Amino acid sequence: MNNSSAQPGHFYALGIGPGASDLLTVRAMRIIESADIILSPQAESSNRSLALATIAPYVQNQQIETINYPMQRDAVSTHERWQRVARQVEDWCKNGQSVAMITIGDPLIFATTCYLLQGLEPYLSADKIHIVPGISAFQIAASRFHDALTLQEDRLMLMSATKLDAVEAALSQCETLVLYKAGGVIHALLALLDKYRLRPAARLLSALEQGTDELVVENLEHFTPGVMHYMTTMIIHCGRRNWQNSNEET
Amino acid sequence: MNNSSAQPGHFYALGIGPGASDLLTVRAMRIIESADIILSPQAESSNRSLALATIAPYVQNQQIETINYPMQRDAVSTHERWQRVARQVEDWCKNGQSVAMITIGDPLIFATTCYLLQGLEPYLSADKIHIVPGISAFQIAASRFHDALTLQEDRLMLMSATKLDAVEAALSQCETLVLYKAGGVIHALLALLDKYRLRPAARLLSALEQGTDELVVENLEHFTPGVMHYMTTMIIHCGRRNWQNSNEET
Repeated sequence: MNNSSAQPGHFYALGIGPGASDLLTVRAMRIIESADIILSPQAESSNRSLALATIAPYVQNQQIETINYPMQRDAVSTHERWQRVARQVEDWCKNGQSVAMITIGDPLIFATTCYLLQGLEPYLSADKIHIVPGISAFQIAASRFHDALTLQEDRLMLMSATKLDAVEAALSQCETLVLYKAGGVIHALLALLDKYRLRPAARLLSALEQGTDELVVENLEHFTPGVMHYMTTMIIHCGRRNWQNSNEET
Repeated sequence: MNNSSAQPGHFYALGIGPGASDLLTVRAMRIIESADIILSPQAESSNRSLALATIAPYVQNQQIETINYPMQRDAVSTHERWQRVARQVEDWCKNGQSVAMITIGDPLIFATTCYLLQGLEPYLSADKIHIVPGISAFQIAASRFHDALTLQEDRLMLMSATKLDAVEAALSQCETLVLYKAGGVIHALLALLDKYRLRPAARLLSALEQGTDELVVENLEHFTPGVMHYMTTMIIHCGRRNWQNSNEET
């Protein structure tokens, strides 16, 4: 797929990174520029315009199709919704059109893309389905600091912050713990950090590279949370215990 | 840093992805195109030409500097080596040159970039140091299949395969386990998979998007390993137990 453009009858699941227009891959950019149809899934609770704003510099005459969906955990209705989208994608592809679905972050890391990929399986042969990875939120969060996420034998754990007991267990199972969706449970997370004296080892970030409302908390020691973005990321260096000790790592 | 080129006196740590020239970000591409000096660290045991081949389409008159280093675990000599590089980078930046260090994958995930970043701290102010994330090997490995790495409450663990007891513990601590450097311990890993009946839940990949010698083993059931690349990646879906059951996920 190197250096190629979108092919007729093919489907592309593209990760477009955190939000800045220059943080998607050259491959994703070229497929967006050459695709007939751009598919943009938009959760009701999310920043609806973010994905389309990210790719705006690369859009000219492509047909834009948005898929609005509620944030819910109903397996049956989720399945049915994405089945309908899959049949629509099948129609477009059978008509010889190329379809590119754009996803903030990486399409295989906590992304709804996966439901569509499951739905497409019966309709489109595997060689007509392509996935282009994107920069995930934890990568852009880490890039704001100048420390390693992982070195040598470090274990990195990436998970949602929503299950507190699982988060507490993870603190002793890895050297670097990355929590997505930390905004909604921030008070409970801070209490957990206090319990293990890990506040100096944790950082908090949200809306990075999205143009406005960036939050970067490098030091949580005296941090009092206000209203927080749902998609806030917390990075905890459980193993190193303290950012100030990072020079001891080799 | 959106849409900008490399600035005089600034240092950039750039992730350039797995190896294909179109799998780095637009931002990394623009910084490479506009930098005065490209710094390419090359481990003695690695594919020495890979990083420079990846960025070849974006290189014209930039000065290319390679840093050869042995793969070793000697903390003192590692520290001294990168201290010397840091002072060289400081000299270039103080002379008003822009320096871009390129790293296969992501510069903060198991990368030597971190040693240089530590070394640079005393010499270059933080606002002159920029990190651009890159697609890491686990992301491109997962993109070869059409399954989620993580959904909803899944925990993703990323670690080196070299400590077998840590790998065994991790099998029950996450839903998706990604092992780097699986090549050197492949027989022990297969025995571990057999112990937990996890062969159907595991996949093996190496040298993806590097032009030649790609290895993609989707089914390990009857797999007999030959000589393997040091940087082989294994993805194990411990939680889902079986790829065939992935449709049950919602």
